[in-house]
Amino acid sequence: MRGRGTEDVRRHNLSTLLGLVHARGGVTRAEVTRELGLNRSTIGALVGALVEAGLLVEQAPSDGAPGRVGRPSLEVRPRTDGAEVLAGYVDVHAVQVVRVGLGGAVRGRRTVATSAPPTPARAAELLAAAARDLLAESPPGLLAGVGVAVPGLVRAGDGVIAHAPNLDWRDAPFADVVAAGLEAATGQRLRVDVANDADLGLIAEHRRGAAVGLSDVVYLCGTYGLGGGVLTGGHPLTGHRGYAGEVGHVSVDPDGRACRCGSRGCWESETLAAAWAEPFDLDPDAPDIADLVLARLAAGGVVSRRTRDKLSRAFARGLANIVHLFDPQAVVLGEGLWHRLWPEVRDDVMPWVDRLVMPAMRAGITVRTSALGEGSTVLGAAELAFTRLLQDPLALTQESPDPDPVLQG
Amino acid sequence: MRGRGTEDVRRHNLSTLLGLVHARGGVTRAEVTRELGLNRSTIGALVGALVEAGLLVEQAPSDGAPGRVGRPSLEVRPRTDGAEVLAGYVDVHAVQVVRVGLGGAVRGRRTVATSAPPTPARAAELLAAAARDLLAESPPGLLAGVGVAVPGLVRAGDGVIAHAPNLDWRDAPFADVVAAGLEAATGQRLRVDVANDADLGLIAEHRRGAAVGLSDVVYLCGTYGLGGGVLTGGHPLTGHRGYAGEVGHVSVDPDGRACRCGSRGCWESETLAAAWAEPFDLDPDAPDIADLVLARLAAGGVVSRRTRDKLSRAFARGLANIVHLFDPQAVVLGEGLWHRLWPEVRDDVMPWVDRLVMPAMRAGITVRTSALGEGSTVLGAAELAFTRLLQDPLALTQESPDPDPVLQG
Repeated sequence: MRGRGTEDVRRHNLSTLLGLVHARGGVTRAEVTRELGLNRSTIGALVGALVEAGLLVEQAPSDGAPGRVGRPSLEVRPRTDGAEVLAGYVDVHAVQVVRVGLGGAVRGRRTVATSAPPTPARAAELLAAAARDLLAESPPGLLAGVGVAVPGLVRAGDGVIAHAPNLDWRDAPFADVVAAGLEAATGQRLRVDVANDADLGLIAEHRRGAAVGLSDVVYLCGTYGLGGGVLTGGHPLTGHRGYAGEVGHVSVDPDGRACRCGSRGCWESETLAAAWAEPFDLDPDAPDIADLVLARLAAGGVVSRRTRDKLSRAFARGLANIVHLFDPQAVVLGEGLWHRLWPEVRDDVMPWVDRLVMPAMRAGITVRTSALGEGSTVLGAAELAFTRLLQDPLALTQESPDPDPVLQG
Repeated sequence: MRGRGTEDVRRHNLSTLLGLVHARGGVTRAEVTRELGLNRSTIGALVGALVEAGLLVEQAPSDGAPGRVGRPSLEVRPRTDGAEVLAGYVDVHAVQVVRVGLGGAVRGRRTVATSAPPTPARAAELLAAAARDLLAESPPGLLAGVGVAVPGLVRAGDGVIAHAPNLDWRDAPFADVVAAGLEAATGQRLRVDVANDADLGLIAEHRRGAAVGLSDVVYLCGTYGLGGGVLTGGHPLTGHRGYAGEVGHVSVDPDGRACRCGSRGCWESETLAAAWAEPFDLDPDAPDIADLVLARLAAGGVVSRRTRDKLSRAFARGLANIVHLFDPQAVVLGEGLWHRLWPEVRDDVMPWVDRLVMPAMRAGITVRTSALGEGSTVLGAAELAFTRLLQDPLALTQESPDPDPVLQG
C-alpha cells in the first residue's frame, strides 16, 4: 500500500463526486456536502472543476421542492452529452450495441440476431458496424471508452477470452479484435474493455437496478450457460486471473449429466436449458427455450410436475451453496432462463432453499429478479467503459481536448 | 464513499507505515520511502511520530550489510514490548491463549486440554485464567486488544456466535462473555474481538505464512468441521453478516451422508473425520483421529485403498469447486485433518482436481500446507486484536497514556 499526497486527495474527491452524480442522476450541493463530508468551499471548487471540464451542469432542481422557503439549493447533474460510451454484448443468438451518456441514459441501441454463435471476428464486425451506425446519428462529445460483455472466462487486464463454452471460443484476444474492427469502421483507436457478462450484469444492477446500496450480492444469468457475478463487501469478486464466480460449474451431483465444461453434474448442466429440454423433448439450443418450457409447465401433467420438482430442488441446492459461500443480502436473477421461469417456480424452489441452508443463516434470504430486465448485461458493459473517466475525471478530459474526436478523421 | 482531508492523509500514512513494519519486522528508511512513495522528510516525520509513541525503534540493521560503503541506512523496527495483544482459540479439544508483541513475536503461550467441548462460559473462564497467568509474567506496555477464534458462524460487529456446530453453541454473545471474564480476572475492561477460526488462520498465513504477498487465497482448516477463509482481490470475504466462506457446507452429493448442519452430502461431512472414521470403524470424535487414519492408510489393504480413492476424489471435487468459485493463486491447508493427511494423499487428490477443473482454469492450481503449522488460527486472532492499533496508531496510544494499564488496578 502506498502513501498519499494532496494530488491523490484531489483526484479521489473529484472521482467520488463524479461517481455520485453519475449514479444518482442529480444531487443538490447540500447532499454532496453531506455525502462527501467536506466543507462547502471545497465542494464548490470540485463542482466548478467538473462543470468546466464539461462533465456536470448546475441547475434548478427538476421538482420545485414545494413547501420549502428560501433560495432552493442548485442541483448538480451529469451532462449526458458531456461524455459517452459504447457498450456491446455478444450472446449465443444476438449481438447488441448501446450508446450511453454520463448518468446512464441510453441514447441509442442496435440488436443484430445471429443464426449461430458468431466467431470472434464476426462478432467484432457486427459490433463495429452497429457502433458506426449509432455514432452517425449525432457527433458524440467525449467518447470515454468501449465496454463489451461476453459469456465466458475473460482474462483480467488484456480482454482475452480464455474459454466461452457456449460460443465455442478459446484463447481469443477479443479486446484487440474489437479495437481493430472499431478502428476500421470509425477511423479512431478506442480503448476497449471486455468482461464476463454476469460480472457486468451485477455492476449494472448494483448501480441502478435491484442491488442499489447493497454490499453483498450474487447475480446469476444465462439460458444455455449459468454465469455468476459476485459483489462482496462492496468489491466485485474477480479472482487472480479474472475467472472467479463460475458458480455454474460448482459440482452438485457426482452422478449428474455431462457439462460442456468437461466435468459432470455442474449446477449449470443440472438446471439450465439442457436439463429442462430433456424431459420435455425440446431442442436445448432453441432461442425461445424459455417460452417452450413455460408452455410445458402450464400444460401440467406427470412429466411437468416431476420435472418442476426435480429442477426446483436442484436449483435450490445451488442457491443454498451460494448462501453458505457468500452470505449475500440478495441473489439477483438477471437475464436468462431462471429470470423467465421464476414467477412460475419460485414457490417450488424457496422451501427447498430454506431446508438446505444452515438454520443460523436462513433468516432474510432474498432472491429477486433483475430490475433492469433483459438489459442489465449491456448496461453493465457501459459502466465498465465509464470506469476510467470516473476514476480520474480530469485526466481523460484533458487528454482529449477535441470535442469531436471520433468524426475528425 | 466520503471525501478526504489532510488529517485522513496523515492517519492513512501512519497506518501504512506501522502496518509495513509490523508485517516485515524491520525495514530501512530507504525501503519505507520506496514502498510508501512519499518524500524523505515526510517519512522522517511519520517515523518520528511512531518512535515517540513508543511503537517503533530505529537502530543499525541486524546484518551488517557487508560490502556496502558509506553510512548504513538505519532500520525501523517494531517495539515488541511497545504494544501487545492477547489472542485465544477455542477448539473442540482445547483452549489456547498466546501473548503477542507488535511485529508478531509470541511472548507466551498457554494451552488447556478439555475433555469435552466447553460451554461459552467455561471457555471464557479458561481464557481469562490463562490470560491472567500470561500477563503476570511481565507487565505489558500498551495492551492493544484481545482477539479470539471460534470454529463457527460469528456475527460481524458484536462477536455473537450464531452457530458453532462442533461446539454445539447457538446465539452465544461470546465477545461480551469473554470481556466480562477478563475483567473479573485482570481488573480491566479490554476490547474483545471474536471471529471465525478459518478467517483468522487466513489472515495469519497472509501476513507471515504461506500466503504472503498473495491477493487471492482460500484457506481451509478443521478436523471435525471444515472451515474456509477466503481472500479475494486482497480483501477478506465476510458476507453481509460475517458468515461467508462456509465452503464445508457446499453440497457436493445429494445422496451423501447427513451433516451436523442439518443438510446432506456437504463437502465437510463427505471428507472430514466422520467420513474417514466410518470405513475404518474409528471414533470420529477421537482427539487423535488424524494419527489413527494415517496408521490405517499406512497398513494398506482393500478398505484402505478404497477409502483413499473415494475420499481423495470427494476432496478433489470440493477443491475444483473452489477453483471455479474463487480463481485463487493458492489453496492453503491450515491446521486440521487434511493438513495432516496431505503428504500421504496429495498424489491421489491432485490428478482428480486436474480432471474436474475447466481446462482454461487448470494452469497453476497450487495447493500447499500452512507455513505456520498448527499455530495459524491463534496467530490470526492476534492479528485481529492488532487491527485497531494498525488502523489509527496514535489514537490508541494517546487514549492510554499509562504505560502499565492492566496491572494498575
